[in-house]
Amino acid sequence: MINNLPANTVERLSNYRRTLLNLEADKKTYIHSHQLAHLLKINPAHVRRDLMLIGFTGDIHKGYEISKLIESIGKAIDCVHVQKVAFVGVGDLGRAVADFFNHQNTKLQVAATFRIGQEPGIQYPDVKCYNIARMKEIMRKEKIELCVLAVPNDFVTDISKIIVDSGVKGILNFTSSRLKVPKEIYVEHYDMICKLEKLAYFTNKDTCPGL
Amino acid sequence: MINNLPANTVERLSNYRRTLLNLEADKKTYIHSHQLAHLLKINPAHVRRDLMLIGFTGDIHKGYEISKLIESIGKAIDCVHVQKVAFVGVGDLGRAVADFFNHQNTKLQVAATFRIGQEPGIQYPDVKCYNIARMKEIMRKEKIELCVLAVPNDFVTDISKIIVDSGVKGILNFTSSRLKVPKEIYVEHYDMICKLEKLAYFTNKDTCPGL
Repeated sequence: MINNLPANTVERLSNYRRTLLNLEADKKTYIHSHQLAHLLKINPAHVRRDLMLIGFTGDIHKGYEISKLIESIGKAIDCVHVQKVAFVGVGDLGRAVADFFNHQNTKLQVAATFRIGQEPGIQYPDVKCYNIARMKEIMRKEKIELCVLAVPNDFVTDISKIIVDSGVKGILNFTSSRLKVPKEIYVEHYDMICKLEKLAYFTNKDTCPGL
Repeated sequence: MINNLPANTVERLSNYRRTLLNLEADKKTYIHSHQLAHLLKINPAHVRRDLMLIGFTGDIHKGYEISKLIESIGKAIDCVHVQKVAFVGVGDLGRAVADFFNHQNTKLQVAATFRIGQEPGIQYPDVKCYNIARMKEIMRKEKIELCVLAVPNDFVTDISKIIVDSGVKGILNFTSSRLKVPKEIYVEHYDMICKLEKLAYFTNKDTCPGL
C-alpha cells in the first residue's frame, strides 16, 4: 500500500480500476488519460495527477497499459490480506456490491449479512445470512473487519455496541444517526437526507422563483 | 430559492438545518459558527462562507438566531411547492429518511415506495407501498418528481425506462450501474464499491506494509 493518499484520490483510483476491469473484459489493452476521464466524467488532469501519485506512467503514444495499471492501483490501495465485510440490514441494495467483491476484487470479501427480526434466508448467492441476534458471535468467528450499517434508527445504539465489541475497524454508516464509537474505528457516513435535499435543489433551481 | 449555489454548499446547508432543528427542539435559541462547525466536524470558515452566500448574518455577541437561520436556509434551498419522492427497492434503509421528510422538512414528501416481486405491505408508517408493476401508473398519478433507486442491477435498464416515462426530474442512484437517462434528468450517483474500498484503505494504511 502507499500510505497518505488523499481520500478523494483513493475513491477515484477505486473507480478507475472498476472501469479498467470492464475495458479489459472487452479486450482493450491501452487507454489515454483523457479517454478514462471522459468515461468517468471527470477532469483528465485529475487522472494524470492521481496516477502520478501512485508512480504510474503511460506510453506517450499508446497511453496507459490497462492490465499494468489495474495491478498498480491494487498495490497502492489494497491491503495484502483479505478483509471481510458484513452487511447489516442492507437488503437487496448490497447484492451487486457483494457480487463484485466476491468475484472481481478479491481483497474484500462479503462474508456475512445480517437481518433484523426475520429468519435467516438466502439474500445474496454464496453469502450466508443470519439473524441479527447472532451478530457478535459470527463477526468474531469470521474475523470481520468492515461493516455496512443500514438499520432503522431505533436499533443503531444497540447494534453499534455489538459492532464495537466485535473488533470491527471501519463502518460505512447509512443510518441517519451519528455513531458513538471509539475514534480508532474509521466511520464513513452517508447522509441520504442531504443528498435528497440537494437533488431537490438542482431539479428546481431553474424553474422555482428566485429570491 | 437562491440560484447557483455550489453543490457542496447546498449539502452543507441541508446538514446545518438538520442540526439546527435538533438544537431548536432542545430549546436552544442562538449558536456561534464555531459551535455549529464543531457539531458537524467541519471548518468554521465553511459555515461562515456558506451563510454569507445566503445573505445571513449573526449577532457578534450572541451568534446566529437558530429559528431565523432555519427559515433562511429553507428560503435558499427549498422549492416553493412540495416535491414528491418515491423509494424504489430501498427497503428499511429509507425509513428514517421518510420519517424526517414527512414530519420535519415538509417540502419533500415520500409519497410511495415500490418493491420488486413481493406483495405490497407496510414498509414505513404513512407511506403506501406498491408492487413495482404499478410504478408508472402511480408515479404519474401522484406526480412524483424525485426517485431513490436501489434495485439489483438486472432490473436497472427496465426500471430506468419506467422512471423516465413517469416524468421524474431527479434520481438518487444507489445501484452500481450508470443510468442511461436524458440529460435533463439530474442524477446523483452513490458508489458503494468505491466507499468500501476507501474504508478498507483507511482502516489499513497504518498497519499494512508500505510500498
